[in-house]
Amino acid sequence: MSDATTTVAELRQIIADFVAERDWSQFHAPKNVSMALAIEAAELMEHFQWLTTEASRELPNDPAKLAEVGEELADVIGYSFALANELGIDVSSAIRAKMVKNAEKYPAEKYRGRYERPKN
Amino acid sequence: MSDATTTVAELRQIIADFVAERDWSQFHAPKNVSMALAIEAAELMEHFQWLTTEASRELPNDPAKLAEVGEELADVIGYSFALANELGIDVSSAIRAKMVKNAEKYPAEKYRGRYERPKN
Amino acid sequence: MSDATTTVAELRQIIADFVAERDWSQFHAPKNVSMALAIEAAELMEHFQWLTTEASRELPNDPAKLAEVGEELADVIGYSFALANELGIDVSSAIRAKMVKNAEKYPAEKYRGRYERPKN
Amino acid sequence: MSDATTTVAELRQIIADFVAERDWSQFHAPKNVSMALAIEAAELMEHFQWLTTEASRELPNDPAKLAEVGEELADVIGYSFALANELGIDVSSAIRAKMVKNAEKYPAEKYRGRYERPKN
Repeated sequence: MSDATTTVAELRQIIADFVAERDWSQFHAPKNVSMALAIEAAELMEHFQWLTTEASRELPNDPAKLAEVGEELADVIGYSFALANELGIDVSSAIRAKMVKNAEKYPAEKYRGRYERPKN
Repeated sequence: MSDATTTVAELRQIIADFVAERDWSQFHAPKNVSMALAIEAAELMEHFQWLTTEASRELPNDPAKLAEVGEELADVIGYSFALANELGIDVSSAIRAKMVKNAEKYPAEKYRGRYERPKN
Repeated sequence: MSDATTTVAELRQIIADFVAERDWSQFHAPKNVSMALAIEAAELMEHFQWLTTEASRELPNDPAKLAEVGEELADVIGYSFALANELGIDVSSAIRAKMVKNAEKYPAEKYRGRYERPKN
Repeated sequence: MSDATTTVAELRQIIADFVAERDWSQFHAPKNVSMALAIEAAELMEHFQWLTTEASRELPNDPAKLAEVGEELADVIGYSFALANELGIDVSSAIRAKMVKNAEKYPAEKYRGRYERPKN
């Protein structure tokens, strides 16, 4: 039941069932879900807001905080899947295609250890 | 290679390899990744910003726009997995646990067709 | 004491005093304040998340909700001023300069009643 | 024409005129403006995304980057005023009232030099 044995489709189905059982699809217009996703991303960020960059790397040493962050991350990915469900997007294909594009945009040899990104 | 046959771990590995090949883990402090995630969520939202709620449901009828939204969604989920990688969170377990909690917070019979959420 | 008689500098000073009295400037690195600002913007957005676009126009008819939104808006502008304070930016000059640029980018005769924005 | 001599109402009027000249009020439903505001806040945050907390304090030493950040901040405050215009909120009163509340929530003597915030 871990990431090694769970397909993306299985997680998407959990979200789809939850929405269907509550008849919430009427509220799940893509515009609304995109807002919900951004709001959850902000709640996730809140856990790191006042930490220094380096201190944020120590978070896994605090199990209670790690659990809280895990819940927020679940919300973010949950709404991401809800949006994919509403729009009919295959997440695995979208990620694979985008990472091919990213690899062209940021060739490993050129961007190794550099965070500057090219202007669009 | 679709969601039906792709495990979460496989997608996480694609992201982990991309980061490792560029030696970008040094920039992937959880604080920074949480910001990147929120920024990508905002870019996704941008596609729906000036549409009415109802018009946003028609987006799948425009293949070019759907492809653009798919790319942004890939970025959001990609950074979500990057954060899970940095923090050592099992995404499938986190989502299953959170959805159990959500089901207790929003019993189906009580919240069917209602968007009001209980105050924290 | 209303917007008609209050200068931007007066509001900025209220924020500066609040931060100084708590010795919070040590936490107010621009990176952190930019995160706080984005988080407050998300909390503001939360009030409109599940409303249709048109229903959101009716919010001023509900004084209790309007007051809540006013508090969130105060937080957003407050952190905006906190960032201006940390960076030494004159807000009035920045807004005037940006609006001149916006007027060139969106000539009134061309963009009247159109929401499509030019690609960057 | 600086913050010392510019009233909030004057800046709000610049925004109101810009919107009126383009007949954009039809797109400025509060829901949409709240999204625009969150998107601009994310664009502002983008400038600090890969910097360490401490490095972000050095930004004012780079005039080109400071100008870019000033433009993004102008966008954030501009949309904040656009929302205040649509909803009929007096910004100065809202900020003063919220800062009184904040002063009660974070008494200076108790929160001096501490970033932990009380749970809601």
